[in-house]
Amino acid sequence: MNHDLIIIGGGPGGYVCAIRAAQLGLNVAIVEVEDRLGGTCARVGCIPSKAMLESSHKYTELKHGLTDHGIKLGKVDLDLSAMLKRKDDIVKTLTGGVDMLMKKNKITRYLGLGSFVSRVDNQVTITVTPPDKKEKPATLTAPRVIIATGSKPAPLRGVEIDGKNIGTSTEALAYDKVPGHLVVIGGGYIGMELGSVWLRLGAKVTIVEYLDRIFPGLDSELAADAHKLFIKQGFTFVLGAKVIGAKSTKDGAVVEIEGKDRKPDSIKCDKVLLAVGRAPNTAGLNVEAVGLKLDDRGKVPVNEQFETSVPGIYAIGDVIRGPMLAHKAEHEGIAVAEQMVTGYSHINYDAIPAVVYTHPELAGVGKTEDDLKAANIPYKKGIFHFRANGRARTLGDTDGKVKM
Amino acid sequence: MNHDLIIIGGGPGGYVCAIRAAQLGLNVAIVEVEDRLGGTCARVGCIPSKAMLESSHKYTELKHGLTDHGIKLGKVDLDLSAMLKRKDDIVKTLTGGVDMLMKKNKITRYLGLGSFVSRVDNQVTITVTPPDKKEKPATLTAPRVIIATGSKPAPLRGVEIDGKNIGTSTEALAYDKVPGHLVVIGGGYIGMELGSVWLRLGAKVTIVEYLDRIFPGLDSELAADAHKLFIKQGFTFVLGAKVIGAKSTKDGAVVEIEGKDRKPDSIKCDKVLLAVGRAPNTAGLNVEAVGLKLDDRGKVPVNEQFETSVPGIYAIGDVIRGPMLAHKAEHEGIAVAEQMVTGYSHINYDAIPAVVYTHPELAGVGKTEDDLKAANIPYKKGIFHFRANGRARTLGDTDGKVKM
Repeated sequence: MNHDLIIIGGGPGGYVCAIRAAQLGLNVAIVEVEDRLGGTCARVGCIPSKAMLESSHKYTELKHGLTDHGIKLGKVDLDLSAMLKRKDDIVKTLTGGVDMLMKKNKITRYLGLGSFVSRVDNQVTITVTPPDKKEKPATLTAPRVIIATGSKPAPLRGVEIDGKNIGTSTEALAYDKVPGHLVVIGGGYIGMELGSVWLRLGAKVTIVEYLDRIFPGLDSELAADAHKLFIKQGFTFVLGAKVIGAKSTKDGAVVEIEGKDRKPDSIKCDKVLLAVGRAPNTAGLNVEAVGLKLDDRGKVPVNEQFETSVPGIYAIGDVIRGPMLAHKAEHEGIAVAEQMVTGYSHINYDAIPAVVYTHPELAGVGKTEDDLKAANIPYKKGIFHFRANGRARTLGDTDGKVKM
Repeated sequence: MNHDLIIIGGGPGGYVCAIRAAQLGLNVAIVEVEDRLGGTCARVGCIPSKAMLESSHKYTELKHGLTDHGIKLGKVDLDLSAMLKRKDDIVKTLTGGVDMLMKKNKITRYLGLGSFVSRVDNQVTITVTPPDKKEKPATLTAPRVIIATGSKPAPLRGVEIDGKNIGTSTEALAYDKVPGHLVVIGGGYIGMELGSVWLRLGAKVTIVEYLDRIFPGLDSELAADAHKLFIKQGFTFVLGAKVIGAKSTKDGAVVEIEGKDRKPDSIKCDKVLLAVGRAPNTAGLNVEAVGLKLDDRGKVPVNEQFETSVPGIYAIGDVIRGPMLAHKAEHEGIAVAEQMVTGYSHINYDAIPAVVYTHPELAGVGKTEDDLKAANIPYKKGIFHFRANGRARTLGDTDGKVKM
């Protein structure tokens, strides 16, 4: 089949780009290896984690009681399978919604792994290999192809993901019982969000972080505030600790750590969540077939118009430079489609917000105070504490502050 | 005592103005007739209503159950006195905070009713009569006086506020038991917010509104959406109905209504909340003594610099033109202080947001679609429904939409 545009990857970057390109008149194909469109965000990332964060927040709030609100409660019990089902239903609804949007915008969907075959006479050829491998691969051609294959959990040397007791965020969104002790490797937003879910549901949660702080990349003052609140909530932190290995045992797992100021140690636990960041996902793309080279971190190099070194081949989202965020990918999807058709696009990379959905949430946009210090930019700083805010008082949510 | 500036009224307009004027170097006095600073907003308005809205929202959510969230609940019971105490404690904390801010900024506080005495040689004299009238009135002078006396619930002919079964928002924030049937006169934001509180806590709530719609002044499309949701929640609406009288009976009250397309009727109930708007509060100010005239709605006319027709006498907040909103008054308080000292101030009256804290909330800023139509201004309209939004799905809060 020939199309005007083939997009490899049906996540937030890919599907939003497909819609915008179709709106602008292109005949668009979208290739996705997973059953469901929506990518990491809708299937195993933002959406299911927010569903579990909301349910677990309600649960822990009720467990602590609402007597000050004038609400007397009887027993409060957890029905984890119902909580997981709610999450799964939300994922189904939203990924189903993406399907509908594809149909509505007359975008052709191909189920399977997209791989480059060749680029000849300005036409790029790719094959789509269905996941069950029973059907024959489809062959598609188009003058333009966008790589929007996203990212996957980054591995860590010595930590064997076995899908049993040692897993990634995907597994941690679906534990079938509350782990007695969960060790999270990595104190970034994924680890803290999913750690929060299971802490609230009753697990002991230990966060092991290589640096001596949590939330690397976020404003260090806010991260330090959050750190104190997380300790109050019951998290255990092991900072400045390098994980040198993790292995499943018969009934759990063991994590081996060492560090500058600590003796080598091991932590026994029931589950291990590896959350040390995400890596660009280019597996099976066969970029060599069109002469495309990845950078040394496995990312696809692009220019300001998202075009790679190979004419007609573009890339957006987690697979290129910049923060790995769904809304960043979506905006790049819109920008690259508009660039192709109208010759104009613009993204202000200084204005990409980021949110961590712990409690309290952390959210920011623009440069952090650390960024300004590092760049020697003079600044004025203003802070307003929520405890002095009337609305925060009425909500009983007085931890935290606004910092400008 | 002589001051640089006397502010009559310690609400959001007055106390914020006092702080800004003190920061700018003025010797400031603030005169407030109530025991507590903070005005209607902190004492008997925004803050206590938001406290009750939050508690009652949690209560009704639990009453409906959280089985879909995977939370099994035993009995859920209301402890109204604890709920009211929480509200009172929040009011105490926040009004106490305003006291502290006065002290910190070296603002002299006078407790009592401020009344104008004279204006001679550019000096304005006022007396402060303490509420218990045992102490002697204090006499203050200043070259500049700001009227920031706010507003009070507007009366309605035929409706006798008796503090027993027929009251205003002040009483409706403190009913000592849940009324069996509450009739709210007025379908504006105050009536709908406080009606929501008691509906959630178990009352039958009837909203009687003179117009054929609720939320006059808000975007009519959003108001109509909200209206449908409120009906689903269990509200009873009697629209296009004029209240010609309301009287307390031995064990409740009776509201008499008539209307173009309805026979005269009467509604029996336990409590009546009169919420037909708010009127400027100039009682006891004795404006005549300084030659100041109110307009025919009882408001104090001011120019763009908030100065009245009498040099040196200013007014801000609910007592002047514009929406009766705490944040509008606060900004006017800052603006008038800066105008006096620096000669410059600016408020963009086209950018004053307004929020109704029902569930769902309604919030808006700028012109409504109705405003644009009425002014014959061409416009483009965009709508996004929350049910298509991932975050709304994860929260289970999919009613409503964003309208631009």
